[in-house]
Amino acid sequence: MIGHAFMGAAHSQAWRVAPHFFDLPVRPVMSVLAGRNADRTRAAAERLGWAEATSDWKSVLERDDVHVVDICTPGDTHAEIAVAALDAGKHVLCEKPMANTVAEAVAMAEAAERAARRGVRAMVGFSYRRVPALGLARDLVAQGRLGRIHHVRAQYLQDWIVDPAAPLSWRLDKEKAGSGALGDIGAHIVDATQFILGDTISEVMGTLVTFVPERPLASAHSGLSGTAATGQTGPVTVDDAALFLARFGSGALGSFEATRFANGRKNALRIEINGSAGSLAFDFEDMNVLQFFDGTEDAAVAGFRRIMVTEPQHPYVAAWWPAGHGLGYEHAFTHQAVDFVRAVAEGTDPAPSFADGLQVQRVLAAVEDSAASGSWQQV
Amino acid sequence: MIGHAFMGAAHSQAWRVAPHFFDLPVRPVMSVLAGRNADRTRAAAERLGWAEATSDWKSVLERDDVHVVDICTPGDTHAEIAVAALDAGKHVLCEKPMANTVAEAVAMAEAAERAARRGVRAMVGFSYRRVPALGLARDLVAQGRLGRIHHVRAQYLQDWIVDPAAPLSWRLDKEKAGSGALGDIGAHIVDATQFILGDTISEVMGTLVTFVPERPLASAHSGLSGTAATGQTGPVTVDDAALFLARFGSGALGSFEATRFANGRKNALRIEINGSAGSLAFDFEDMNVLQFFDGTEDAAVAGFRRIMVTEPQHPYVAAWWPAGHGLGYEHAFTHQAVDFVRAVAEGTDPAPSFADGLQVQRVLAAVEDSAASGSWQQV
Amino acid sequence: MIGHAFMGAAHSQAWRVAPHFFDLPVRPVMSVLAGRNADRTRAAAERLGWAEATSDWKSVLERDDVHVVDICTPGDTHAEIAVAALDAGKHVLCEKPMANTVAEAVAMAEAAERAARRGVRAMVGFSYRRVPALGLARDLVAQGRLGRIHHVRAQYLQDWIVDPAAPLSWRLDKEKAGSGALGDIGAHIVDATQFILGDTISEVMGTLVTFVPERPLASAHSGLSGTAATGQTGPVTVDDAALFLARFGSGALGSFEATRFANGRKNALRIEINGSAGSLAFDFEDMNVLQFFDGTEDAAVAGFRRIMVTEPQHPYVAAWWPAGHGLGYEHAFTHQAVDFVRAVAEGTDPAPSFADGLQVQRVLAAVEDSAASGSWQQV
Amino acid sequence: MIGHAFMGAAHSQAWRVAPHFFDLPVRPVMSVLAGRNADRTRAAAERLGWAEATSDWKSVLERDDVHVVDICTPGDTHAEIAVAALDAGKHVLCEKPMANTVAEAVAMAEAAERAARRGVRAMVGFSYRRVPALGLARDLVAQGRLGRIHHVRAQYLQDWIVDPAAPLSWRLDKEKAGSGALGDIGAHIVDATQFILGDTISEVMGTLVTFVPERPLASAHSGLSGTAATGQTGPVTVDDAALFLARFGSGALGSFEATRFANGRKNALRIEINGSAGSLAFDFEDMNVLQFFDGTEDAAVAGFRRIMVTEPQHPYVAAWWPAGHGLGYEHAFTHQAVDFVRAVAEGTDPAPSFADGLQVQRVLAAVEDSAASGSWQQV
Repeated sequence: MIGHAFMGAAHSQAWRVAPHFFDLPVRPVMSVLAGRNADRTRAAAERLGWAEATSDWKSVLERDDVHVVDICTPGDTHAEIAVAALDAGKHVLCEKPMANTVAEAVAMAEAAERAARRGVRAMVGFSYRRVPALGLARDLVAQGRLGRIHHVRAQYLQDWIVDPAAPLSWRLDKEKAGSGALGDIGAHIVDATQFILGDTISEVMGTLVTFVPERPLASAHSGLSGTAATGQTGPVTVDDAALFLARFGSGALGSFEATRFANGRKNALRIEINGSAGSLAFDFEDMNVLQFFDGTEDAAVAGFRRIMVTEPQHPYVAAWWPAGHGLGYEHAFTHQAVDFVRAVAEGTDPAPSFADGLQVQRVLAAVEDSAASGSWQQV
Repeated sequence: MIGHAFMGAAHSQAWRVAPHFFDLPVRPVMSVLAGRNADRTRAAAERLGWAEATSDWKSVLERDDVHVVDICTPGDTHAEIAVAALDAGKHVLCEKPMANTVAEAVAMAEAAERAARRGVRAMVGFSYRRVPALGLARDLVAQGRLGRIHHVRAQYLQDWIVDPAAPLSWRLDKEKAGSGALGDIGAHIVDATQFILGDTISEVMGTLVTFVPERPLASAHSGLSGTAATGQTGPVTVDDAALFLARFGSGALGSFEATRFANGRKNALRIEINGSAGSLAFDFEDMNVLQFFDGTEDAAVAGFRRIMVTEPQHPYVAAWWPAGHGLGYEHAFTHQAVDFVRAVAEGTDPAPSFADGLQVQRVLAAVEDSAASGSWQQV
Repeated sequence: MIGHAFMGAAHSQAWRVAPHFFDLPVRPVMSVLAGRNADRTRAAAERLGWAEATSDWKSVLERDDVHVVDICTPGDTHAEIAVAALDAGKHVLCEKPMANTVAEAVAMAEAAERAARRGVRAMVGFSYRRVPALGLARDLVAQGRLGRIHHVRAQYLQDWIVDPAAPLSWRLDKEKAGSGALGDIGAHIVDATQFILGDTISEVMGTLVTFVPERPLASAHSGLSGTAATGQTGPVTVDDAALFLARFGSGALGSFEATRFANGRKNALRIEINGSAGSLAFDFEDMNVLQFFDGTEDAAVAGFRRIMVTEPQHPYVAAWWPAGHGLGYEHAFTHQAVDFVRAVAEGTDPAPSFADGLQVQRVLAAVEDSAASGSWQQV
Repeated sequence: MIGHAFMGAAHSQAWRVAPHFFDLPVRPVMSVLAGRNADRTRAAAERLGWAEATSDWKSVLERDDVHVVDICTPGDTHAEIAVAALDAGKHVLCEKPMANTVAEAVAMAEAAERAARRGVRAMVGFSYRRVPALGLARDLVAQGRLGRIHHVRAQYLQDWIVDPAAPLSWRLDKEKAGSGALGDIGAHIVDATQFILGDTISEVMGTLVTFVPERPLASAHSGLSGTAATGQTGPVTVDDAALFLARFGSGALGSFEATRFANGRKNALRIEINGSAGSLAFDFEDMNVLQFFDGTEDAAVAGFRRIMVTEPQHPYVAAWWPAGHGLGYEHAFTHQAVDFVRAVAEGTDPAPSFADGLQVQRVLAAVEDSAASGSWQQV
């Protein structure tokens, strides 16, 4: 695994836990963790449970005992590492957003295609697909229980930089992060809604805004939550919020919003879908629940149902606890690891593929173009 | 109408509004309001829309143009007025709790029985029965959609005297009010659950508590919300909270709680019912909603449904607004007036009858006996 | 009053009830109801409580005993009636949307300005402003408790024509209704958000869609809910849904959506506002509640508060019932009548004025222009 | 660890995960799993991640490399194993309910006391104490933010045997399980409310009921969820539901209900507390949330706050994910393991102690006595 911050911890937990709850055809071994700084990587490997540590990720690709490379670094490094790993014959699981630019994503998708011909697999880490409630949402749409889809309403609301005194971090730096709320969290709702609908966005019209253009510089060694102020400020070069309207291939209308300025919303990934036969609503702040309205029922007893998505019939749930004993944030990563390992072992293509990741990247790029031009943009 | 405080205002609104939304066989005329104090009654009649005012309620019974007497006074006067009115041939609508003692209630039920033989009708004002969501609840139980009832969980939670500095009012005086939370709001959940289930409570075991036994005396003329302190205190002679377990005739188990000390709960009349086939949940703080769980559904899509009880199919709703345009507190009083007028005009017995009111009174008395004896008490 | 359908009933209830709960400087008298069809108007006057009926609205303007004209007709007639009434010296309360075109609205605003010079008042019926929870929302924003506003998220979701078999009605006819979801319900969220923020929308970018372009013709005499099919279909000439992004004068970003195709949402007027110091959330399907997040609190105990907006401190509430005893849909109309009567009696300008109504009309027109051009449009 | 069913899986996950998120003074090693059946225990050890397996739990106590014994077996074996382990100098973590009888619990508490003198520690596994929201609840009460406690309302609602065709399992057998809903889930709400209040129950009055007295026998080898019917039935010898009223030492009134017949409630551990200064509400079906009402606030903005208990300030949370990224059911077990390991390493007494477990057992026994006698019972 390469990278050991927030995502590194989540992925490590997934690799550690997956084999104890799911029957896996092969047993993952957490062999080596790569990072930029040797000392910090060694400490992280110890903490996260990796056997070895290295500050040279390229050396990992040369090892015969490494079959899978899991990329958890900032977005600007994804393309280089992923292409090299795939070309070295390693299966790759790459965190989202897949890349910082469409060009990088194209290169990655091409590498994945080359690799697939040799039986080498690549997958993008849109983990929310693996939340059971969203798996159930997709199933209900696929079963036709929503009918023709009219509306998609998707928001990803956070508030961690609403305070103008919150320091600059790599996530606010366009060089490192590619974009702001759009790529970091907007990408998730693009993928999640397309996944649930089995449809793609064909056209967008949007706007990006940076509410706080200057922020205090944190000291060199602080990470995401580092707050050691230096007295200096630097420019925020990414968007604080992204809003866009969208048209799906099927004719459904979408309204999307990604922001880090929704005071009081901590991780509110919210999706509502309205169809001719029914509706769905989801909020990650109550992640074990899917709201479902069945419009075919007698109006006297119809209503949004609060489905506790903790039944053995629900995606992934049978491996865990009895009904009503909810799962947490990291379980989606475990499910992701399970699906990836199974696909690799069975020689099938995992989803979302790098081609899927590229398509999401094109949607994000179209939003940026639309924000610049002030008009609708084809994806 | 006799009495012109909180309930007098609610009843006046009902008489005024009912004929404009419902087809009534006869049109109510708001002729005369009776109260203790001539000046205040005259002002109230003006404000509430009554043609005349009197401080002598007995004179009302002698008038030929008065056909209905609506009793909104404190509980200690109900028996005398109701019996006199019925014996004078007036149809009577009497606020709950029907009486302060079982003996009074017996006398009233007997008077109602005598009156019924002459075509004179009597009804008790358990208004919550007329909230559409609770009407729907009863319908669902009657249709068998809950199956065999196992559990009833009913709470009526308020907090208006949680502050020990809140003054004494007639509602805290056993002479006037008969009892505290038990009779004032506990009576409502006894009636409402029995109504929904079509069943009666056969046995209870409970406790009463007075958390704040002394309170400031308000000045003589202040009413419910009067806070003009006199520097003196007086004893609270009723219960602040009443809790009891109950067994219904059918074998269902009930848990009841009525309190004025549930900080932050303003008028939370909450009822949950669990049966072998499904469940219901209601909270008056979201009064246009009934939660319904259909246990016969596929577990993958089962969940408590938030039914907006604002469809034309729902009880009373067709007379009002389109779906989603909710009703408020006083609408239940309008429905009560409608049902009463129709019963009187059609010559049928309205429900809840005085016999029903007597039965509720017996449940409350059994709770008091149980609290005194520390053991289960037959109703 | 002119017009006697849904809005006519709501307004009649307001005039009837207002003087019994609020101290009014003058007492409204419900003198004459005007409609197109003499018989049906007479029946409506009887049902709704008006002393007389006429099928000639112009005759009403000539009566000396009529001081106020309340316009509840479809939008295409507003301008003619309102201008004539104002010029005849009658105070005018006009249902929203104020007009079907900006040109009509301009004429009305000019008439209102002329009239104001003679002490004659005009107001538009954006009734949701008078829901106590939205009044409280405005107060909190005005007090600075939200700080700088970043986001406005407003949706008005209904589903009454999601069934393609629902018949054509005047509300789906551009001639009568001016527009579809945009003008009917989109107008409400434009007014409500501008009201709460004390700010105006300066720029919009939107899209309109008609999901079901042909619908069965209902027979000639059926109204809104008439379903007597004729076997023929006719074109829907208005939008089924309107989505738009908006920029407010202050820099806040808005996302708006009005639709009649949100299956399961009956009257979900939902508003969320995120500011630097706090946030608000409201849903009319739980109309007595305002959610408030105070971002200045210790994070350990901060959270969205479910404020029951039923306290005497809250706007309009002291006139009604004790805390926790919620209001319903029509109460906002009563509050509107109260505010209008007071303004007229005190000789002050009521809000929203016809100039405010014209501004909303300009926003709606800009959305239509933007939908046609595919680019941002100044208001 | 002894036992490898549901609780065994949860405990295994805790031991595995704890050291990767929390700084522990010593690192737990998952050495040996004991069970009744050699083959099944070996398979479980493999799946759950234990190095060795044995079908002789007594042999475990003789091993020098075993320092901690974690007891996850049915309740009838707890006393024997725990006493032996403590006497053998092993620290013991024992699942709840601590024992099937007060006599057993007394023996265990005495063994724990003997052991404590030698530095050997014992703890009962009331895991819900370690849910962050309940930790926060306790903190708020301890800080006085609820003032004097008036009401405790606690329910533990499940529905897994509401179907009369659900088979007999060891949990429905008094010999194995000691009691039914009372000991299995009622014990949790007794412990949790006492923990939050820092108070104990002094008196109870309750009733037990068995709604379905006969159930199909499952085949010999099926476990909890085994449904292989044999055509025969057997008696249910435990309670399906337990309801009781309680008085706490401080004078607070409690209402408790534990049932497996609350159709639609999967694992609804719900606690509400009302005090003179504020209130709390919790529901495990939304486990990352604590509702808090601050009664000292201005009534205009007071309301139950939905606190997302995912902030770094909240108990245990800093070790996990950013705000808004919720935890799941098993995290409480990880926290329990952490607290236990720390207490053992630091030589302090962990809580809840066996003395605490005994006290809960006495409360349960008092409920049973009260159900038998029909009167209040001292604890």
